[in-house]
Amino acid sequence: MAVYTDITDEELAGLLADFDLGAATAFKGIAEGVENSNFLLETERGRFILTVYEKRVNEADLPFFLELMRWLAKHGYPSAEPMADREGQLIKRIRGKPCAIVEFLNGLSVRRPTVAHCREAGAGLAGLHLAGEGFPLTRANDLGQAAWASMFAGLTADAEALKPGLAATIDADLEMLAAAWPKGLPTGVVHADYFPDNVFFRGAAFAGTIDFYFACIDAFAYDIAVALNAWCFEPDGSFNITAARALLAGYESRRPLSDAERAALPVLAHGAAMRFFLTRLHDWGATPAGALVKPKDPLEYERKLAVHRASPDLLVFGAP
Amino acid sequence: MAVYTDITDEELAGLLADFDLGAATAFKGIAEGVENSNFLLETERGRFILTVYEKRVNEADLPFFLELMRWLAKHGYPSAEPMADREGQLIKRIRGKPCAIVEFLNGLSVRRPTVAHCREAGAGLAGLHLAGEGFPLTRANDLGQAAWASMFAGLTADAEALKPGLAATIDADLEMLAAAWPKGLPTGVVHADYFPDNVFFRGAAFAGTIDFYFACIDAFAYDIAVALNAWCFEPDGSFNITAARALLAGYESRRPLSDAERAALPVLAHGAAMRFFLTRLHDWGATPAGALVKPKDPLEYERKLAVHRASPDLLVFGAP
Repeated sequence: MAVYTDITDEELAGLLADFDLGAATAFKGIAEGVENSNFLLETERGRFILTVYEKRVNEADLPFFLELMRWLAKHGYPSAEPMADREGQLIKRIRGKPCAIVEFLNGLSVRRPTVAHCREAGAGLAGLHLAGEGFPLTRANDLGQAAWASMFAGLTADAEALKPGLAATIDADLEMLAAAWPKGLPTGVVHADYFPDNVFFRGAAFAGTIDFYFACIDAFAYDIAVALNAWCFEPDGSFNITAARALLAGYESRRPLSDAERAALPVLAHGAAMRFFLTRLHDWGATPAGALVKPKDPLEYERKLAVHRASPDLLVFGAP
Repeated sequence: MAVYTDITDEELAGLLADFDLGAATAFKGIAEGVENSNFLLETERGRFILTVYEKRVNEADLPFFLELMRWLAKHGYPSAEPMADREGQLIKRIRGKPCAIVEFLNGLSVRRPTVAHCREAGAGLAGLHLAGEGFPLTRANDLGQAAWASMFAGLTADAEALKPGLAATIDADLEMLAAAWPKGLPTGVVHADYFPDNVFFRGAAFAGTIDFYFACIDAFAYDIAVALNAWCFEPDGSFNITAARALLAGYESRRPLSDAERAALPVLAHGAAMRFFLTRLHDWGATPAGALVKPKDPLEYERKLAVHRASPDLLVFGAP
């Protein structure tokens, strides 16, 4: 939860003066989003979210993110559509920071996804991959496999502090992942952070996806691997194979996987666990005592790494 | 900003099952309110705020607060109306804590009130005092003048740490306030925390009041004194007499003050500054390093105390 930037009523009125959204009728900081400041903004014309981009978002990436959100909304995918000002601009500035106004997306995220939620989430992810087809902009996955070794280079002491002996284990993982990382899988727009907090439901039905600020061009199956890690582990750390099958079945109801994609899932899931372990380990070490936002526990993903390491065939569920 | 209590979708659905509000369509933590956890809750029937009462609110006081909000809404005052469940209950429980669902009140609070805002705020406060007439419940002001000496008894070391020599100054203030505190002024329902964050505007017009969790029965003029301190000081610490006159004129447009009320304003404003100084000093000392919520600066109210101490006739503006 976070609101890092304080917006005065004058600043808000100044921003809205550039849009055709009418005057603000309500404005409240939302305790949501770790990277940015988010505000509920109601105007005479509707309900919106104002996002102020804080320093962790690279401003040069914003056109990719916002044009993607616009593209997806225009292609029938339920994601929040960014609002353009009278000059057609999606990216504005407030208090010296970039910001954007996007429509308010209805729906609730689930804390403890059921198997049924996993199926719906899988179908929603396939829908995202399909709706992204033809999107003309490109952005590399700067948190992808090629980046992990250098990300970890500065974090070995943090890993040892977390758990003695962990640095050597991670080094071995990284070597294996570099050798086994699949090439040539179908690629396109991926969300790259498809966690339960970023997926909305209306009742039991998938209702939309938010937070595209890690989106990039990468293998579709890598996005599935991120989702399997995020949706299909139990609170006790065990992998729920039933939930995983449901997520994949939901996905394949919209976009069937190739044999190569399916075969790659175990190593992709191991790698996806590595990506979140590394960024959490970084944030854990970098967060000053007394910070307003508590970093997420890197041990959660260290345990997922251990599961994938111990059972590299866990995600090969061709046979039930 | 604060969300202290995490609510799962199952817990929310369980709560809503007792109401006729339909299912939730959106649910977001709001970065607002220091004492409680607040959530934007949208259902098939409308928009609401779910407030979960944290330990600083005395549960025995909740019926006063919520019945008052209901009373005010029923008597035409723009405040959020609490929703009753099917059995007529306003106070519910979630995750072992008391909670309530109130309607969403439109409007924006202002960060830097103008003189025009002060006038509107004054009229809104008088409207609150008038709408509260006849409210049958009662609650003493447990942060009123009678409580200050004992509140300060445990805080002298904190005062000295804030500013050497301050403890003796505060002791002298408390003695003066005890001797000069006015008796027999007209009393009734007061908000007792009528700060700009708790007052909504729609454009330039007063639109409503929120956060009745310090409301009690006390002198109406004390409520005005709290508001004068909260609305009419400049960021540089100086008192804006024009803003104060506007607030009073707005108030008197709805409820004229008696001579006794007007004459009491200087000592009431000195006392109202003491009340917020003392609670901020307490919170300052009691907040552990690394807490998620930053305590408000007690020095802001120490400076207001100094203004009232130096110019006890500041608020006697019978003549322009």
